[in-house]
Amino acid sequence: MEPKHPVVKPFLTTRSLEPENQETPIHFIENDIIQTPLFYRRNHFSYPKLTYSNYFILINGLVSTPLLLSMLNILQLPSKTIEGVLECAGNKRSLFEPKVFGEQWEKGAMSQGVWKGVPLRTLLEISGIKKEAKEVVVEGYDVGKRTDLDKEVSYSRSLPLDKALHPDTIIAYEYNHQPLSFKHGFPFRLIVPSWYGMASVKWIKQISVIGSHFTGPFQKIDYMYYPNQDNDDGAHPVTTMNVNSTIQKPIDMASLNAGKHEIKGIAWTGKGSITKVEISIDHGKTWSIAEVTNYNLGYKWVSWSFDWYAVKKGNYTVMSKATDSYGQTQPIKPYWNRKDYGYNAIDHIKVKIE
Amino acid sequence: MEPKHPVVKPFLTTRSLEPENQETPIHFIENDIIQTPLFYRRNHFSYPKLTYSNYFILINGLVSTPLLLSMLNILQLPSKTIEGVLECAGNKRSLFEPKVFGEQWEKGAMSQGVWKGVPLRTLLEISGIKKEAKEVVVEGYDVGKRTDLDKEVSYSRSLPLDKALHPDTIIAYEYNHQPLSFKHGFPFRLIVPSWYGMASVKWIKQISVIGSHFTGPFQKIDYMYYPNQDNDDGAHPVTTMNVNSTIQKPIDMASLNAGKHEIKGIAWTGKGSITKVEISIDHGKTWSIAEVTNYNLGYKWVSWSFDWYAVKKGNYTVMSKATDSYGQTQPIKPYWNRKDYGYNAIDHIKVKIE
Repeated sequence: MEPKHPVVKPFLTTRSLEPENQETPIHFIENDIIQTPLFYRRNHFSYPKLTYSNYFILINGLVSTPLLLSMLNILQLPSKTIEGVLECAGNKRSLFEPKVFGEQWEKGAMSQGVWKGVPLRTLLEISGIKKEAKEVVVEGYDVGKRTDLDKEVSYSRSLPLDKALHPDTIIAYEYNHQPLSFKHGFPFRLIVPSWYGMASVKWIKQISVIGSHFTGPFQKIDYMYYPNQDNDDGAHPVTTMNVNSTIQKPIDMASLNAGKHEIKGIAWTGKGSITKVEISIDHGKTWSIAEVTNYNLGYKWVSWSFDWYAVKKGNYTVMSKATDSYGQTQPIKPYWNRKDYGYNAIDHIKVKIE
Repeated sequence: MEPKHPVVKPFLTTRSLEPENQETPIHFIENDIIQTPLFYRRNHFSYPKLTYSNYFILINGLVSTPLLLSMLNILQLPSKTIEGVLECAGNKRSLFEPKVFGEQWEKGAMSQGVWKGVPLRTLLEISGIKKEAKEVVVEGYDVGKRTDLDKEVSYSRSLPLDKALHPDTIIAYEYNHQPLSFKHGFPFRLIVPSWYGMASVKWIKQISVIGSHFTGPFQKIDYMYYPNQDNDDGAHPVTTMNVNSTIQKPIDMASLNAGKHEIKGIAWTGKGSITKVEISIDHGKTWSIAEVTNYNLGYKWVSWSFDWYAVKKGNYTVMSKATDSYGQTQPIKPYWNRKDYGYNAIDHIKVKIE
């Protein structure tokens, strides 16, 4: 009797089960496509109960022709494939100081893969947008109660017209060349590349074109940057992902032998593309350029690595800093905001060379 | 086409893959027996390659008759069943301030279940212990290099004679009424109830009775309490689990409605049994007694709960403090030691009532 070689694999990290919130084990991801079982799960409510036999998407509001589209209607339209990062606006929230209440996401509230679907634009063009249109509201089948409101609400989000009509904003029905999984929005979820994940509504129920600014709680209470603790002055919406990077190896607080070590990780941004990743071993006094495997990946993250010759024993802080084509670079301190969104400070880990 | 109700379940939390170290999602465990897939995995080296067809345990050293025991030899001896906690000495290490290098275990480097096996005492009695015997060294098949030593070493630990001869110290081959899984030491692992997990050597290769104090690196470098940062004065071995408790619900940093909430968790100790669990909502100024479901569970943890009527909105710190039958109680501050073992400070979480 010979044992098989034991399989050693990472798992999602559980943050809560009701609703299900679990993050991708981002430090242990070897390739640049996250398989469905390790794709982070972020829900505001428990999973909806859907009946596919009479599933339709309703398109209404400021349109010439309201539409009721069946699954087949949508699958027959010309498709588009998008590869890219999906990142929760609360990714890395647990790194803010002081901590705020909410899901304590570490660095894995993000994943990456390949979505196939129909541009939202296509549906809106079939329906015909009236000229008073300002925003497009996408409502999911997921509903529930919030601690701050008395009545049940659905998870709904709006996009400004230009983003709704962007040809890469799609209604996805496949992920990694397989039907989208139920937990990730089957049969249809919105994918809004370059924006934080809150925009990518799952289990689409209704698409409404409106002539005002949408005021649902996930638009005007959550997913807003509030710069002040005590008032809402300067509040502005969470939209595009910030330039960011994460060190995947070594693991924070690792003890290593003196010698050569590969420092590796990923970097991504919402607007533009990554142009540079730098590494510092001396608390930011000096920076060295990391090797980036492939620039210009569209909406995908880039992978980077840096060979570190750690000769002298001692404790080190390893830092990574990404810069994008719009000149945005990771700050030393994160942009503090009351609900702790958009953390993108320079990443750092500590290691001991012994 | 109706979907099945989606299964929402927790997973192990990955700390490292080489070697595999993953912790139990202790906050999401509903019953008091941990199934094998969620049992924490703590390895010092990669998994050993075993050939079961010629697997034997060698018993040697200061014995009248050295023995070479086959799997069948051991399975035919009278068995004993032990239910209890297994807790890594590094459990909760990440809570120490300042942090030290090493595995950053949160609160789930512990599990609980039912082991069946043969008392080590039985084997030692068959072999016959000579009177100069002082300790019993148990060596595992897992070998590898440490960053602080040049040559390969095996994972080996010794027990003082009284603990080795304790009738509840068993060589286990079943867990939860199933054959022990390979990752947890199949075909045979030591189970030393009431001691931290480092004593419970997996994949037993050899048992040696010695007349001196064992000096292997996992006995005399690791798993020692070093009270000082700069010298080894006062060093003493890690043995019995400290009295401890963990709040499972609510989750740290949760936002909750005003109203009644159940605070629930577990408490355990190595020596004696839990006699009291107390809860504080006011930073330790006052304490209330939690309801303990079942005292006197031998080596198992107790489950406790407390109904909290949270009327006033605001931020709260919820604390739990366990006391055992030897009068040991959880301290406000953990006992600092250079390698960060045995963390057992009063547990606490923060919640917001809104």
